[in-house]
Amino acid sequence: MAMKRAGVSAIRALCSSPNLTRRVHSTAGSKKIVGVFYKANEYAELNPNFVGTVERGLGIRDWLESQGHQYVVTDDKEGSDCELEKHLSDLHVLITTPFHPAYVTAERIKKAKNLQLLLTAGIGSDHIDLKAAAEAGLTVAEVTGSNVVSVAEDELMRILILVRNFLPGYHQVINGDWNVAGIAHRAYDLEGKTVGTVGAGRIGRLLLQRLKPFNCNLLYHDRIKIDPELEVQTGAKFEEDLDVMLPKCDIIVLNTPLTEKTRGMLDKERISKLKKGVLIVNNARGALVDTQAVADACTSGHIGGYSGDVWFPQPAPKDHPWRYMPNQAMTPHISGTTIDAQLRYAAGTKDMLDRYFKGEEFPLQNYIVKEGVLAPQYR
Amino acid sequence: MAMKRAGVSAIRALCSSPNLTRRVHSTAGSKKIVGVFYKANEYAELNPNFVGTVERGLGIRDWLESQGHQYVVTDDKEGSDCELEKHLSDLHVLITTPFHPAYVTAERIKKAKNLQLLLTAGIGSDHIDLKAAAEAGLTVAEVTGSNVVSVAEDELMRILILVRNFLPGYHQVINGDWNVAGIAHRAYDLEGKTVGTVGAGRIGRLLLQRLKPFNCNLLYHDRIKIDPELEVQTGAKFEEDLDVMLPKCDIIVLNTPLTEKTRGMLDKERISKLKKGVLIVNNARGALVDTQAVADACTSGHIGGYSGDVWFPQPAPKDHPWRYMPNQAMTPHISGTTIDAQLRYAAGTKDMLDRYFKGEEFPLQNYIVKEGVLAPQYR
Repeated sequence: MAMKRAGVSAIRALCSSPNLTRRVHSTAGSKKIVGVFYKANEYAELNPNFVGTVERGLGIRDWLESQGHQYVVTDDKEGSDCELEKHLSDLHVLITTPFHPAYVTAERIKKAKNLQLLLTAGIGSDHIDLKAAAEAGLTVAEVTGSNVVSVAEDELMRILILVRNFLPGYHQVINGDWNVAGIAHRAYDLEGKTVGTVGAGRIGRLLLQRLKPFNCNLLYHDRIKIDPELEVQTGAKFEEDLDVMLPKCDIIVLNTPLTEKTRGMLDKERISKLKKGVLIVNNARGALVDTQAVADACTSGHIGGYSGDVWFPQPAPKDHPWRYMPNQAMTPHISGTTIDAQLRYAAGTKDMLDRYFKGEEFPLQNYIVKEGVLAPQYR
Repeated sequence: MAMKRAGVSAIRALCSSPNLTRRVHSTAGSKKIVGVFYKANEYAELNPNFVGTVERGLGIRDWLESQGHQYVVTDDKEGSDCELEKHLSDLHVLITTPFHPAYVTAERIKKAKNLQLLLTAGIGSDHIDLKAAAEAGLTVAEVTGSNVVSVAEDELMRILILVRNFLPGYHQVINGDWNVAGIAHRAYDLEGKTVGTVGAGRIGRLLLQRLKPFNCNLLYHDRIKIDPELEVQTGAKFEEDLDVMLPKCDIIVLNTPLTEKTRGMLDKERISKLKKGVLIVNNARGALVDTQAVADACTSGHIGGYSGDVWFPQPAPKDHPWRYMPNQAMTPHISGTTIDAQLRYAAGTKDMLDRYFKGEEFPLQNYIVKEGVLAPQYR
């Protein structure tokens, strides 16, 4: 944590960057906390648990203000005149989410001279320049686990939507048509198909467990093997070489964080080696794949269907090719922000703020950058 | 089977109808077989396994004709001038499907004086007047089990589509919008919700198995309890009284055959007692529910979402209210006619024809009406 300055330099010695900016952090006193969330607008009053919004601000305003802290919330995060920019110079803590990401660039980190702590309400902090955050000696933390079930459920939904060719049927209904053949000629059972997950972290493992009763051939690729007990329980087979696994799959699910190593991993060349008609689900990050290569392969039919809720950038512009490519089942970034997930990541964010004020450690698995040192998977 | 005439009268004595028409059946000689399927049209050539169509006719034409039988296939099944009507007077076997149902009325059965056998390529024979078929001493059989996995998978997809509020997100994408709040305010995790299945036959049990890893509270109502081992495996709790179970459910799935007892079971009164915002999945039969009561409750919001692939009648007319009601995720009748299912029910239909020609029994579970006697669940 930021307050443990004594140990920081020793830890930093392990870090790749030689030019760390030493910031003087203190957890004592009144803090200015800024939260960037999506706006609920007319939906604000429809659900008392809709806490992950500008209107509700994670439900922590009274708690923060009663302790003398200042709390600003906004959805205005783009450009040099936005509300977020106005507060950069004096904020101590910035709370962001992956669903309406405030891109925390090196430049913004430089401006935010009092910044100590970047909290992601949710999972996935790639909207933050982690290298710059590490060099500035900051701490970046997520509410690890808060929405892994939410995302895994959503992935299984998307697999089924693609395998069973749901959307053409739905379109027939709303257009007044009825043509079973137009759906059935490319509708399949999930049973018996080969499903591979790229990444078997928390979300990937939950997906494998949920896939188990569907009697698929389950494969996974990761840096390390999953727990042997879980391997037996799910029947999933470890594939050490990604490029050996991918061409075996009828369905590929991306479950890996976006890092400099994984950016653009599913590019034109890799796609060309996949099975014709392969189905791809990506709720991880849009930039894991080459946007245009995916759109082209959906148009040619080499990719038989693509579904996910992640794009780059977000919000996706009106002319993003994935909005218009055939056989897509896309949504805005939604899978991790169910009402159930919001309640969990609001509680997790509050817990970390509380620990921060008290000078206590966070749960270890929450750290992405701990006092200037990147977590191993991001190095 | 029709060929075992010696035992028929004894069995018929057990049957409720006193006025059985005794037809003289013989399995020997050349037979005229008529199949009613949906047309593939421009999709026929897109998939070599697209066998459940007029164009492919279950892939049994060569086999039938090589044995001297006549095989007519059509999709023209409505009205007195349709192709089906032309063949009623001299057909011996009629093959139909639930996806493009030829309604086999008492009047049609009366016209079909040579008819011996009604085969349903798929599951669900309620498009046949079973009482009239029994009174005529006919045999009605399905390919039991051929698409139960297909339907159960589809049900889980629909549960997730409703719980997670998928379609509003998809609509935003294709309309060039991005409004996470418009989706998230009513998107939930499936985890922790109470899911009740009305009927725990083959499909209901497969659904419960697939729901197990989602950590829901699982309930089921049926005439009899499921196997104790499966009850332990799935954690599903038996509910003897339907009207006690239904108001407990966040999600209700219908998995019961359409009979005179179940027709219209989910009517206005029962709907009024459900939880506000309840989600309903019905891949069983459209006539299990009151069409207008469902549409009204979706409009009022009492039903939070309704998804299924069954309608009455089928094809659904252009002005069917379910096409236009809010929060629907409907498709044409598709869940049991995936390519995998088609291959299975084509094989099962061929197997029963083969047994019929040889004078052999069908697998016992396939019989809906056996030589004039209704299976117990249809009485």
